[in-house]
Amino acid sequence: MTNIHNCDKSGYKAWLVYNQATWTKPNPNTVLFDSICADPVQKELEVAVEELKEALTAISGKIPELVSKPTSGNTVLIHLIPQRKTLKTADTGNGSESDGYISDSEACRLDNEGFIIKSCQTGGANCTVIAAKTGAGALYGVFALIRHILCGTFDKNAYIVQNPAIKLRMLNQWDNMDGSIERGYAGNSIFYRNGQITTDLRRVRDYARLMASVGLNSIVLNNVNVHGPETRLITKEQLPKVARLADIFREYGIKIYLSINYSSPIELGGLDTADPLDSRVRSWWSEKASEIYEYIPDFGGFLVKADSEFRPGPFTYGRNHAEGANMLAAALKPYGGLVIWRCFVYNCRQDWRDRVTDRANSAYDNFMPLDGSFDDNVILQIKNGPMDFQVREPVSPLIGGLKKSNYMLELQVTQEYTGQQRHLCYLAPMWKDVLDFDTYSRGKGSTVARLLSEPEDGLISGIAAVSNIGDDMNWTGHDLAQANLYCYGRLAWDPWLTSEEIAREWTMQTFGRDPVVTDTITGMLLDSYHIYESYTTPLGIGWMVNPGHHYGPNVDGYEYSAWGTYHRADHKGIGVDRSVATGTGFAGKYFPPNSSIYESIETCPEELLLFFHRVEYDYRLKSGVTLIQYIYDSHFEGAARAAELVDRWKSLEGRIGSDCFGRVLARLEEQAAHACEWRDVINSYFYRKSGIPDEKSRPIY
Amino acid sequence: MTNIHNCDKSGYKAWLVYNQATWTKPNPNTVLFDSICADPVQKELEVAVEELKEALTAISGKIPELVSKPTSGNTVLIHLIPQRKTLKTADTGNGSESDGYISDSEACRLDNEGFIIKSCQTGGANCTVIAAKTGAGALYGVFALIRHILCGTFDKNAYIVQNPAIKLRMLNQWDNMDGSIERGYAGNSIFYRNGQITTDLRRVRDYARLMASVGLNSIVLNNVNVHGPETRLITKEQLPKVARLADIFREYGIKIYLSINYSSPIELGGLDTADPLDSRVRSWWSEKASEIYEYIPDFGGFLVKADSEFRPGPFTYGRNHAEGANMLAAALKPYGGLVIWRCFVYNCRQDWRDRVTDRANSAYDNFMPLDGSFDDNVILQIKNGPMDFQVREPVSPLIGGLKKSNYMLELQVTQEYTGQQRHLCYLAPMWKDVLDFDTYSRGKGSTVARLLSEPEDGLISGIAAVSNIGDDMNWTGHDLAQANLYCYGRLAWDPWLTSEEIAREWTMQTFGRDPVVTDTITGMLLDSYHIYESYTTPLGIGWMVNPGHHYGPNVDGYEYSAWGTYHRADHKGIGVDRSVATGTGFAGKYFPPNSSIYESIETCPEELLLFFHRVEYDYRLKSGVTLIQYIYDSHFEGAARAAELVDRWKSLEGRIGSDCFGRVLARLEEQAAHACEWRDVINSYFYRKSGIPDEKSRPIY
Repeated sequence: MTNIHNCDKSGYKAWLVYNQATWTKPNPNTVLFDSICADPVQKELEVAVEELKEALTAISGKIPELVSKPTSGNTVLIHLIPQRKTLKTADTGNGSESDGYISDSEACRLDNEGFIIKSCQTGGANCTVIAAKTGAGALYGVFALIRHILCGTFDKNAYIVQNPAIKLRMLNQWDNMDGSIERGYAGNSIFYRNGQITTDLRRVRDYARLMASVGLNSIVLNNVNVHGPETRLITKEQLPKVARLADIFREYGIKIYLSINYSSPIELGGLDTADPLDSRVRSWWSEKASEIYEYIPDFGGFLVKADSEFRPGPFTYGRNHAEGANMLAAALKPYGGLVIWRCFVYNCRQDWRDRVTDRANSAYDNFMPLDGSFDDNVILQIKNGPMDFQVREPVSPLIGGLKKSNYMLELQVTQEYTGQQRHLCYLAPMWKDVLDFDTYSRGKGSTVARLLSEPEDGLISGIAAVSNIGDDMNWTGHDLAQANLYCYGRLAWDPWLTSEEIAREWTMQTFGRDPVVTDTITGMLLDSYHIYESYTTPLGIGWMVNPGHHYGPNVDGYEYSAWGTYHRADHKGIGVDRSVATGTGFAGKYFPPNSSIYESIETCPEELLLFFHRVEYDYRLKSGVTLIQYIYDSHFEGAARAAELVDRWKSLEGRIGSDCFGRVLARLEEQAAHACEWRDVINSYFYRKSGIPDEKSRPIY
Repeated sequence: MTNIHNCDKSGYKAWLVYNQATWTKPNPNTVLFDSICADPVQKELEVAVEELKEALTAISGKIPELVSKPTSGNTVLIHLIPQRKTLKTADTGNGSESDGYISDSEACRLDNEGFIIKSCQTGGANCTVIAAKTGAGALYGVFALIRHILCGTFDKNAYIVQNPAIKLRMLNQWDNMDGSIERGYAGNSIFYRNGQITTDLRRVRDYARLMASVGLNSIVLNNVNVHGPETRLITKEQLPKVARLADIFREYGIKIYLSINYSSPIELGGLDTADPLDSRVRSWWSEKASEIYEYIPDFGGFLVKADSEFRPGPFTYGRNHAEGANMLAAALKPYGGLVIWRCFVYNCRQDWRDRVTDRANSAYDNFMPLDGSFDDNVILQIKNGPMDFQVREPVSPLIGGLKKSNYMLELQVTQEYTGQQRHLCYLAPMWKDVLDFDTYSRGKGSTVARLLSEPEDGLISGIAAVSNIGDDMNWTGHDLAQANLYCYGRLAWDPWLTSEEIAREWTMQTFGRDPVVTDTITGMLLDSYHIYESYTTPLGIGWMVNPGHHYGPNVDGYEYSAWGTYHRADHKGIGVDRSVATGTGFAGKYFPPNSSIYESIETCPEELLLFFHRVEYDYRLKSGVTLIQYIYDSHFEGAARAAELVDRWKSLEGRIGSDCFGRVLARLEEQAAHACEWRDVINSYFYRKSGIPDEKSRPIY
């Protein structure tokens, strides 16, 4: 193979790799554009035009002409739809009123961030119009057009209307000012170094591009655990530098947020309290908000981890979370800012002997009684599961449980419990399980995707995820982990995309359109989550990892700890009874029929069996094998399949760039070896404990 | 109680607390000295005189007169025995030749570091003569006299002759130049701060005093793990500062040593190798030695951790340990320096699945074949057990096994595996078990104490221990942990002292002579090791601790690791079969009858049962209880006894200084709580694994 698409040796360009190879086998229904037309005075469109120009230049091998009116040839016309008066309801035809390109009724179908791509003939030119109400919308349209070109799916006659399904599409950076990243597996922070905000703004801009290319529109610039130096990000000393970051993100349609320290009035303000009902505290935050908005007029707001894992919060002052959050909300309200308040609240000093307290209940028990008490610019941020980003958890019952509060879903792109970017684990299938989960909150069909895209009247919703990038040249350490950042953005934009669609388009953009490459990598990505799950923790039990860093197997690692994370394995069985009848009652927090499905060992989905039930090793699963045999089989098979990933990747040698090939191969080989370690530790643990041998007499130690 | 002895609130003075309370109930056979007599031109005696003067001043309430000749009253005469010609063998009487105080035959009984204390009448004065051949000997005599006074055992008619049983009595500081201390539990280093050698030489001097007061004569000033900054301690930039430390220690009869990085010729010398047979390397070290001795003419030598736990060493160059050590020895030889070469060598990347390799065999297998190949200024330093300072291990079979090599015993005063100075664990009983162990190396009676004090002809021996001090005001964090530093020095001087004798004299010196205090604390100290053992790891199995920091219970913490430390517990039993017949063969490395005693489960001492044998839970111990029941009983009893320590200490309220009382009470309370955690984790682990309930139905989780 001589025609290797990916000529970005370092992986730095990620999925925005443009080159002529893309164009070698054009679709007959496509065209090569020779010009870009946009109103040069519309500053909002500058970045969209630039991005399109860069892509077309690289793909076509010549620089497209920039014109202010379409006259001839094939042109992309980027059009900002003017603000108009409210449309009459009756006006639903195909453009009785029009600005020349877009009819009122078409305009009416677009949100502020949406776009239309359609063809039209005008002034002798074959136009492909990208129309939007904002620069951000136009930029999303441009990236959509580029995606279609790169994937070979651009049709000159296409008519595409898209709006993002979820309004707030956010990344959370867990970056610290010393340059470290909590749960970061791809080097150091691109935002901070040695206690200072970076001056390498180019890398920040490139990150903004990647974000915008998949439709993300918000970013929290620092770790939810806000320590001394980060507390000072909202001071006059740091705000001018934060504002410079905001300037960059703004060009790409992205608002910035900061995580704040709830004790800031004490640590920065010199007050003796951070009590949210204290008038001095309220004034302090109001003044602070005013100050922040002087520097950053479109500042997004605060992300707050309060009363969680030793972070300060309103509990210190006998106040509840609503009182705590609403105080901040009042300060931000005049400027349109939001308070994003995390629901990750539990007793992290639990006694492991205590079998009554159940961490799974914690977020629900803390926040459900407060439903309706939060101000309208507070959004509760809820982790996808009730525990903490385990490989397999049920969906948090707060999602759909809350009816009168703004909330958003929190996912984790960084692979804390899913292989730390040393193992391949494409997360779209996991997130799809979450998004497709029917909560029955509003009756059948109340999937998480629907709840997020259609919040209750007057409420706002969103989605957030902890980013997986660092200053490694390829952003994510494992080149294939870029797919997780990509698919997160794509699902936030359109949660009804399938895992395969996203994997396929990511692969084509990143590695070109060699069908062998596309099929192989797409297949590897799609299998990877199940492979990872099968050789790690079985059936939703979770937490069998080394404490602290969370890498590698350690069955009892969290068993006698204070973190509320127990499997309770003994010589007879394993699992936590979370039924209402005989357990901790967690199953009862779901709407029917989920509650009864989870309640019974017979109906509980097997992949969550040990999350909801205590099961004896000789219990027979639906397949007929015993639980213990399932554990053995799954681990032997998982490790074998991890080894196969190496071979599957090796089959691509020569078809993709050798640098990337080598980097990924090294990680896959490490994964295969580490999967054997997982297999042997888990199997040995359960064999030693149960005394029940493997029916197939494979080696267990 | 109004008359509280200990008026040193911070604990800084340790066991050198002098005050008048000591003298309140003098022994009728004792005297209060009113003068000190020493030849003022003998500079060697300056420190001995100073120390005695300070002690007598504090104890008697008045400053003793310094006289150059005894004339009247009660005087302590400090006498440096002049160098004489060799004595004739026949001359064994009571002083046919004499220098006025000491006869030739008496002088003949003294080593360089020994001393005589005896009474004599001269010039109208009642003299107590302290005579020695060196200033160090005199200083040891002075501290012995002070000890007797403080303990109320000074008799004016006493005739005491003492020589240290073991020649080299060393402390190893595991201090790093960043100020941290590896396995340090009492603050930061007193030697280094921020990458520099300290300028607080006063604290260093006070440490030297403490060392000399118990007869220690050598110190290694930096961690055996020598990293970048410490590698540079042997450069011209650091040597002048090291020399200042040497000056201080020299006054107290202590030689300094440095741990070196085996790769220094590369890292400092710019060579491309550290191969011990390379002539450039040999020259480099020779020149380095010459340079060091320019700054420190009595420099002790090097301590070397080579080819161990990722430290560089001769293996890199295909050379063995003898070649590696002898090369350094040749460099130091012209100056009388020693190479102390650690035998702590094992494969720390073992596969836990491998049941053939046994770390216990490692030091023996590495060094026995080299016996006789080491130069005469190389000393092998052997940890007391074959593993690594566990609560209970058999004695290393290298001790007594080696016949043609210098060797020294390595102990650990710092409580890495014995409660980290948060738990009370007086280590004398553990060390006595080692020192009293009969190796049968030279037939019955070949105890470790005897081997160390009577090395084979022409060989030298010694004892070393990792220090437990830091810059906490009380040196050791736990005030009672001072007893470990004290007893280490005392046992190095005289390994036939009993644990109780030492505990009692330490307690009296530290807390005064209230018999309630003495009995209570002595009792607590003596019980503490067994209490600690009983609620932690059972029967010599070891290693059930959290990895890395080694604090707190974690039964499987090292079970699936690469460190060679496995208990192999399953649902039926636990322990490692180290017999020759069916196990790893380690038992066979001992001389008979030890080898056969350890070989058989019937004769193996029960406290080492699980070290040498795999035992099923229902196996009946000699007491008639099953192994599992023993584990339960031991842990319940141990935790209960830990709680009793709190009460025993509380009974002393008002009898000892309130600051120290409070500090120790807080630690004992923490220990009692942590003992419950140990009890519950260990018991629950074995209950869950074995399924066998406690016969007494106590709570297990």
